[in-house]
Amino acid sequence: MRKLGKQEIEDIAVGAALLGTGGGGDPYIGKLMALQAIEEYGEITLLDVNEVPDDALVVPSAMMGAPTVMLEKAPGGEEATAAFKNLEAYLGKEIFATMPIEAGGLNSMLPLALAAKLGLPVVDVDGMGRAFPELQMVTFYLDGIAATPMVLADEKGNTSLLSTINNVWTERIARAATIEMGGSSMIAIYPMTGKNLKESGISNILKLEEEIGKSIRLAKQNNADPIKEVLKKANGFELFRGKVSDINRKTETGFARGVATFEGINEYKGETLEVRFQNEHLLAQTTDQRLLCVTPDLIAVLDAETGLPITTEGIRYGARCVVIGMPCHPKWRTEKGLETVGPKYFGYNVDYVPLEELVKKGVTA
Amino acid sequence: MRKLGKQEIEDIAVGAALLGTGGGGDPYIGKLMALQAIEEYGEITLLDVNEVPDDALVVPSAMMGAPTVMLEKAPGGEEATAAFKNLEAYLGKEIFATMPIEAGGLNSMLPLALAAKLGLPVVDVDGMGRAFPELQMVTFYLDGIAATPMVLADEKGNTSLLSTINNVWTERIARAATIEMGGSSMIAIYPMTGKNLKESGISNILKLEEEIGKSIRLAKQNNADPIKEVLKKANGFELFRGKVSDINRKTETGFARGVATFEGINEYKGETLEVRFQNEHLLAQTTDQRLLCVTPDLIAVLDAETGLPITTEGIRYGARCVVIGMPCHPKWRTEKGLETVGPKYFGYNVDYVPLEELVKKGVTA
Repeated sequence: MRKLGKQEIEDIAVGAALLGTGGGGDPYIGKLMALQAIEEYGEITLLDVNEVPDDALVVPSAMMGAPTVMLEKAPGGEEATAAFKNLEAYLGKEIFATMPIEAGGLNSMLPLALAAKLGLPVVDVDGMGRAFPELQMVTFYLDGIAATPMVLADEKGNTSLLSTINNVWTERIARAATIEMGGSSMIAIYPMTGKNLKESGISNILKLEEEIGKSIRLAKQNNADPIKEVLKKANGFELFRGKVSDINRKTETGFARGVATFEGINEYKGETLEVRFQNEHLLAQTTDQRLLCVTPDLIAVLDAETGLPITTEGIRYGARCVVIGMPCHPKWRTEKGLETVGPKYFGYNVDYVPLEELVKKGVTA
Repeated sequence: MRKLGKQEIEDIAVGAALLGTGGGGDPYIGKLMALQAIEEYGEITLLDVNEVPDDALVVPSAMMGAPTVMLEKAPGGEEATAAFKNLEAYLGKEIFATMPIEAGGLNSMLPLALAAKLGLPVVDVDGMGRAFPELQMVTFYLDGIAATPMVLADEKGNTSLLSTINNVWTERIARAATIEMGGSSMIAIYPMTGKNLKESGISNILKLEEEIGKSIRLAKQNNADPIKEVLKKANGFELFRGKVSDINRKTETGFARGVATFEGINEYKGETLEVRFQNEHLLAQTTDQRLLCVTPDLIAVLDAETGLPITTEGIRYGARCVVIGMPCHPKWRTEKGLETVGPKYFGYNVDYVPLEELVKKGVTA
């Protein structure tokens, strides 16, 4: 158990946005919400997953929807509380703690803000070890844990409590409701026991986020190369350096979908990289069909100078970026893991090859 | 209080389909479900609205979705029970009785089948006195009664419990969920007290349906003109006689929308009538712009020979039909009533004129 103060929040926000692989919402808004909650309600208690009693009820809190919409329609805080309280009433059991469902600028921060407000601890665990765009894309799903009962709440005061036969139906019905609610909603989902979490969650995710964020901050202070520091902390590989030459993005069926194109610079000159995304970056491939990294492995786009992560909605024409890859959690490399979040699921006609093998083949040109 | 047996069900089914103005679902499927339920569980108790205690909880049961989909995806019965039981559990109070939300082939019958199954009485009241396509289009809405908490259930086992800030949001979010559930769902909605019902419901609707159905049945037995008998019972007017020359129908955004065209016969020869619908018939106008009847007044299309009502999805090329009009309940002719279900709401660029005035101007050519 330890306390999270302002510096920890700052670092976690940066690291979470990086592991959010372009999605998971705007890190700036998320950070402000968490900082303001600490200001108002005091520091947040962070629990190790082993500190949670086996029978305790833990409920992740998250925002659902396209990050492009979240930018224009920031959550007020009331809807997260409403979703949480409705689910608690329905389950008839007190919620012991909350947690993030994924790593991401907004979705790592929102549970912290909610925890501060409600005086609950946060558990250092998530269900992805990164961000993914759909509700069933969590390790809990791989382990047969139900997403429902879940509650969606919007900023107007509408709520919807879902019980579904499986987590793919949860995603479908909740997505339809979220789109109708204006493109984003706050959700309380995957109510779990401490035992579920220990068996199925990805532990120490906030710790990792904090270390990544801290390494970028310290690199700046020490005039060191932030990219190098990040790669060390995140066990990652540099894949490409380039300037954004095109960004094609649209919000459809509740997601931000598109492709960002980078013209190579330095040793990558002459090559062109395309990064495809659905909320998150999912596929990095050169225009001559050389695969650099593909989902479920992590693709992050960093500012070449500051090392700070750039979200899909933050990619701007002309920006100089470094694209890095990081291996995903081993659970995603199983058969069911790849069925759930592999390239085929997203409609990409490539086979999954682990990042480490692609790197061996010579990712760096 | 009285009992409804098989003959009553047969008659109600016909009358309900007629007042359903083309919508409210297939009368044949609805009738079979109600008859089967009586067969299995015994006759149904029908209560007058004045026999319901003021504080008793009454919950309408209905199918939501496009009738075109309902035809292919008939409800099994389990989903109606699930919706009802979920809502009862949420409200923490026993449901005293059920009732139809509207008149219609399926939506007048389904509450009867559910009542038989659950051993509950049915109250002789509805919220439209006809059928309308959207959830807020009930007299309860005009009187400020909330549609939620409501529950949607599909045949797969998914349920969604909604609480919304107003009934227009109920319609929007429930419609989105229904579309995602495959185009139709069973709903338990507008939980009300006996007092609510007495003040806001349209009483004796099942009685009227039964009388209309009976008049058609007896006309056949007595070789009388069924159309004349119906017009007498329903306080209606003959508007047109014609042969279906075109039927344009598509299922979009969860509704069956389209237009049926009739070439005049007998005294209407030389005229062409277009009947526009969104699940229900909403506008009857000749191609030379003579308005015959418009929502909220009722437009029914009857088989010229048998007098039996034809639903929008049952209209067939070449069929000889009589189009009749009936005045709506006075609540629909108020300012809020016309805002909610008048021609402008449905996007028709005509002013509402009460049927009786149109008739005076000379509806019959």
